[in-house]
Amino acid sequence: MRPSGRQLDQMRPVSIETNVMRHAEGSCLIKIGNTHVLCSATIEDKAPSFLKNTGLGWVTAEYGMLPRATNSRTRREAVLGKQSGRTQEIQRLIGRSLRAGVDRSALGERQIVIDCDVLQADGGTRCAAITGGWVALRLAVNKLLAAGTIVSDPILDHVAAISCGIYAGQPVLDLDYPEDSAAGTDGNFVVTGRGRLVEVQMSAEGASFSREEMLELLGLAEAGAKRLVEAQLSAIGG
Amino acid sequence: MRPSGRQLDQMRPVSIETNVMRHAEGSCLIKIGNTHVLCSATIEDKAPSFLKNTGLGWVTAEYGMLPRATNSRTRREAVLGKQSGRTQEIQRLIGRSLRAGVDRSALGERQIVIDCDVLQADGGTRCAAITGGWVALRLAVNKLLAAGTIVSDPILDHVAAISCGIYAGQPVLDLDYPEDSAAGTDGNFVVTGRGRLVEVQMSAEGASFSREEMLELLGLAEAGAKRLVEAQLSAIGG
Amino acid sequence: MRPSGRQLDQMRPVSIETNVMRHAEGSCLIKIGNTHVLCSATIEDKAPSFLKNTGLGWVTAEYGMLPRATNSRTRREAVLGKQSGRTQEIQRLIGRSLRAGVDRSALGERQIVIDCDVLQADGGTRCAAITGGWVALRLAVNKLLAAGTIVSDPILDHVAAISCGIYAGQPVLDLDYPEDSAAGTDGNFVVTGRGRLVEVQMSAEGASFSREEMLELLGLAEAGAKRLVEAQLSAIGG
Amino acid sequence: MRPSGRQLDQMRPVSIETNVMRHAEGSCLIKIGNTHVLCSATIEDKAPSFLKNTGLGWVTAEYGMLPRATNSRTRREAVLGKQSGRTQEIQRLIGRSLRAGVDRSALGERQIVIDCDVLQADGGTRCAAITGGWVALRLAVNKLLAAGTIVSDPILDHVAAISCGIYAGQPVLDLDYPEDSAAGTDGNFVVTGRGRLVEVQMSAEGASFSREEMLELLGLAEAGAKRLVEAQLSAIGG
Amino acid sequence: MRPSGRQLDQMRPVSIETNVMRHAEGSCLIKIGNTHVLCSATIEDKAPSFLKNTGLGWVTAEYGMLPRATNSRTRREAVLGKQSGRTQEIQRLIGRSLRAGVDRSALGERQIVIDCDVLQADGGTRCAAITGGWVALRLAVNKLLAAGTIVSDPILDHVAAISCGIYAGQPVLDLDYPEDSAAGTDGNFVVTGRGRLVEVQMSAEGASFSREEMLELLGLAEAGAKRLVEAQLSAIGG
Amino acid sequence: MRPSGRQLDQMRPVSIETNVMRHAEGSCLIKIGNTHVLCSATIEDKAPSFLKNTGLGWVTAEYGMLPRATNSRTRREAVLGKQSGRTQEIQRLIGRSLRAGVDRSALGERQIVIDCDVLQADGGTRCAAITGGWVALRLAVNKLLAAGTIVSDPILDHVAAISCGIYAGQPVLDLDYPEDSAAGTDGNFVVTGRGRLVEVQMSAEGASFSREEMLELLGLAEAGAKRLVEAQLSAIGG
Repeated sequence: MRPSGRQLDQMRPVSIETNVMRHAEGSCLIKIGNTHVLCSATIEDKAPSFLKNTGLGWVTAEYGMLPRATNSRTRREAVLGKQSGRTQEIQRLIGRSLRAGVDRSALGERQIVIDCDVLQADGGTRCAAITGGWVALRLAVNKLLAAGTIVSDPILDHVAAISCGIYAGQPVLDLDYPEDSAAGTDGNFVVTGRGRLVEVQMSAEGASFSREEMLELLGLAEAGAKRLVEAQLSAIGG
Repeated sequence: MRPSGRQLDQMRPVSIETNVMRHAEGSCLIKIGNTHVLCSATIEDKAPSFLKNTGLGWVTAEYGMLPRATNSRTRREAVLGKQSGRTQEIQRLIGRSLRAGVDRSALGERQIVIDCDVLQADGGTRCAAITGGWVALRLAVNKLLAAGTIVSDPILDHVAAISCGIYAGQPVLDLDYPEDSAAGTDGNFVVTGRGRLVEVQMSAEGASFSREEMLELLGLAEAGAKRLVEAQLSAIGG
Repeated sequence: MRPSGRQLDQMRPVSIETNVMRHAEGSCLIKIGNTHVLCSATIEDKAPSFLKNTGLGWVTAEYGMLPRATNSRTRREAVLGKQSGRTQEIQRLIGRSLRAGVDRSALGERQIVIDCDVLQADGGTRCAAITGGWVALRLAVNKLLAAGTIVSDPILDHVAAISCGIYAGQPVLDLDYPEDSAAGTDGNFVVTGRGRLVEVQMSAEGASFSREEMLELLGLAEAGAKRLVEAQLSAIGG
Repeated sequence: MRPSGRQLDQMRPVSIETNVMRHAEGSCLIKIGNTHVLCSATIEDKAPSFLKNTGLGWVTAEYGMLPRATNSRTRREAVLGKQSGRTQEIQRLIGRSLRAGVDRSALGERQIVIDCDVLQADGGTRCAAITGGWVALRLAVNKLLAAGTIVSDPILDHVAAISCGIYAGQPVLDLDYPEDSAAGTDGNFVVTGRGRLVEVQMSAEGASFSREEMLELLGLAEAGAKRLVEAQLSAIGG
Repeated sequence: MRPSGRQLDQMRPVSIETNVMRHAEGSCLIKIGNTHVLCSATIEDKAPSFLKNTGLGWVTAEYGMLPRATNSRTRREAVLGKQSGRTQEIQRLIGRSLRAGVDRSALGERQIVIDCDVLQADGGTRCAAITGGWVALRLAVNKLLAAGTIVSDPILDHVAAISCGIYAGQPVLDLDYPEDSAAGTDGNFVVTGRGRLVEVQMSAEGASFSREEMLELLGLAEAGAKRLVEAQLSAIGG
Repeated sequence: MRPSGRQLDQMRPVSIETNVMRHAEGSCLIKIGNTHVLCSATIEDKAPSFLKNTGLGWVTAEYGMLPRATNSRTRREAVLGKQSGRTQEIQRLIGRSLRAGVDRSALGERQIVIDCDVLQADGGTRCAAITGGWVALRLAVNKLLAAGTIVSDPILDHVAAISCGIYAGQPVLDLDYPEDSAAGTDGNFVVTGRGRLVEVQMSAEGASFSREEMLELLGLAEAGAKRLVEAQLSAIGG
């Protein structure tokens, strides 16, 4: 029934290749099916000014998409002179999600910038960016720990994200682009390694959904997130 | 326990004054406690170009905040030369939410622009904007029906929005600013008149939440939305 | 003869409601007929950098208009990414006018920002903004005096503004929008409580005017300003 | 008493050299003392879109200043990414003033763009731009008439502009930069060849002025404008 | 003597992997040592408007760099709101170079957009972008030919680019980043498959060079370009 | 054969008038035939921040063009809100070229800004800007030396620039606009007083060129540059 022939609760193949960018403190290329996102983490010695003298650190994210990551060419935001509302919404989500898994006091007054750039898009780019962004963050923090710059690990738990939606009347896991553009309701769920929730965003365009459908999608997402956490673990050699 | 002394499930007083802007096709001033939002609806004869020859209409929204709506002055976006990521995220949410309650085919190839400008802010401005924006939309559509420009009512149902959150460990309804800035988890729920869900956005900053907490907040929201729908009905004389 | 049926020297009804914004140090909603402007004053502890170590303060203004304050919707400047030339011209005029009534040395090295946002427009918005802006300024300065932050009153005199023009060949006071858009010559006059002039801006589009006409308009303006000063006095309880 | 040793009613030397830009339809270099402005007129076949099918033409102006026209270097607006409020205010004034001397119906549905670029500044640049801009406009219109493109002359009269102010307590004509920056009140007067008024802009910064002072300045301006009109006439060989 | 231990005339290893982006009409990932550039070609049905009704096509290019392609993080141009001068200079060079190898009449009134995004930078990114951009262009044109959309091949010849410079007093081929930042003179040479020149850009910062040195660098470049053309041939299976 | 009737190796008349801007530390108006560029040098007490505590100075350039310097009016970059890619490329070239003739250590931690504004364009504006910019720089540095602010002369040599190209199959010197727009290959050469090269930029649009043609153009350029250096010497009274 799904365009890809997948089962309703079947995710696309996941691969996470680490340390793919020689200059970054942490990096990975995450592939969820045909969605490919390059994630890097940059450690900056200073926290943003609003944190001055608080002893707290910050994790922030930026998101971009190559013009031809998409089926028809998307105009380059640097040429348009601004990031779209969608881009800003996504990068705020990535930053907020990753911060939920970090003890900012243990991180100390420094900032880690996560860059997520979509090389190829087939639905679910923001979820891939969060899941891959966490791996880049983990690797960068490992460097801080190895160097003795910080002594206790500020990473509290895994953070991973997965989409679900109601496609052709059925709840399905991990929407690809054809499903995403046809789904009446879709949602993104950000979940920790212990299975707690960090973000739930469900949205109906031109329809609405019930409390029961919401719970069905949540159930799919919890199962999917578990598999993503395993992929993260295996990528970082955990 | 709440700074305002309200019960956990007690909303702030709601008032909706209609037809407050003499030039707009529909308008209202909605007050949820000290949060005051001026909403107007403008009917445009043309739909956006991506809908040309589809027979479908569009509803979109823009959101703004007067510089001194807030406790300390916020810089004016027109001076900064761009809308913030937060502003864009909110106006996308308002537009998406209202479209979910509209039969775009019955509306025909025209656009209704909902402007939501916050005159005074005390938490929950996006929810007030959706709830008041719906009233402005309803009034503007009434004009189209009265004039015979369209013949069948494109409004499918009410759309109203309410925030909830976990404040000091307790689920509370309709966060004001002091609660909003201290809550570990907060959520915005957009609900129809029949009680179906249109948007669920739950977010943890520096914490996480369980499936059970999610359901508790949802329950509060469903009750709150019901009261907002009553306020809408009474405002439009329904 | 006038579209509104007013006498040549008859102003529209004036009302000034004070303290309408709970967060601002001073605020009012001024209504001149159907022109409604919300004015707030914000006290900032620092003067602009060009005044550093001079002992002098500054008063500045920003002006905006809600998109549907006008008969047909005006595009939002925050979306366009810049303030129009007209907006900048008006806010420069408001700031210059209000500064003319202030002893910047008595104010000390701080800045007061006057925000004037037009909720509804029917001609004369810049004049309403100056007249209402002065009230907001007065109220904010009262707070500084009451708190003992400053000891001598920096407000030298009232500042009020009124428009006049030659409509259908006749000099008329306080142009509304239909008059303003048809007038061959129109002018804005900023006047102090003692009747001295602060700004005179007369402009002919597609016509020209004589010295005598200029004096007639000035005479109308002087009378109108007197009535605005009375409204200011009554608003601040003077 | 004046820094330059001039009499109170003495203007600086005026020179207008025509046809200085080989590509423009009309051009001149106007020098008012050390204020030098290069003015050009460009004829465009189309009027702005808001005039479509009205039979009316348009005259508009743009104003710029070379970075080192001023005593200390001014940052280039093209680098800053926008025109300042002052620049926009000036170019709106130039356009409005020149349009007041034009029969837009005789001009027909075309646009003439007047570019005024300050090569060297010593006060009074906007007045020099209007006076020189009129010459460039006159020369361009002459070309249209000579080519038979239009048959009746759309230029109704000369338009010239001059500044006056109250310097050290005395009304003086044609302020240079040292006077301009010290004057308590200054004004710009745009006058036609027949002595009628087109724009009067008087402004007090940190002071105020009386009706009598206003009239004294107006008298000075009328005399000054007469001499500028003579310089225009002699420049165009009239 | 070179930081990398290479011979003076030794290039870094070159690899070109084709068809790496599933949505693009042509694409490759080119690696010149540690410089990695992802190149895609997008076919657009319309030529730019300045070519309307000329029968001629166009090839243009855009260039970008991921923030962490560089040793320290570079700020994202989409966030800064504009492309840097360097970026614009490079993308103009890429477009001009590729057009030199295309018969725009045989291409017909369509446009091919080449996107070159640097995933990792180690000197020579603009040369890699030209060399890889040509491969993407070749592959996209092949599709047009295969589909019969165009009948005669518009590609006239290979276009490849290589840098040379004077490092530590010696002419060297294919500068990496440490060499590039220390070289007194460096140059970029764009060469066709037949060995003719398309662009020569030599530049001395803080030094100067002689006619003889220029010729030495040219000789190195000609040899290097030959090897790049071979790599192009092998990539496209030629 | 040339549109102007010049010999293949004949330059247009050159004139350099110095000290034409009363406020600038150095200035000249350079005319190369009908190309007229006004150049000024501004001395700033501070070097850019990246040079802090290095003891080194900086020379930078900005380039602009009056809208009607060109045959048809060019839109003003300040109105468009950004400098074009061409403008940025040119001003980077001017700055780089002039720095190549300066001992930045002898200049000390200060910056000299060269503004080059094209009053009239007929091809070769960037070359005229470099040649005239050097004169403005020389005059400004003379002031620093005369004032004893610096003790040893930081100017190492003349820097001058000239264009050449292949027009109608023939190598020609100093292209004017009709030649420039028709030339298959054109180049800009920046040369020192001793005849050494600083920049070579050769470019083919829709063609390519041989090593021999390159050398022919270089030969022409070297002869042309010699004459420009003589004009510089005579302008500065050397």
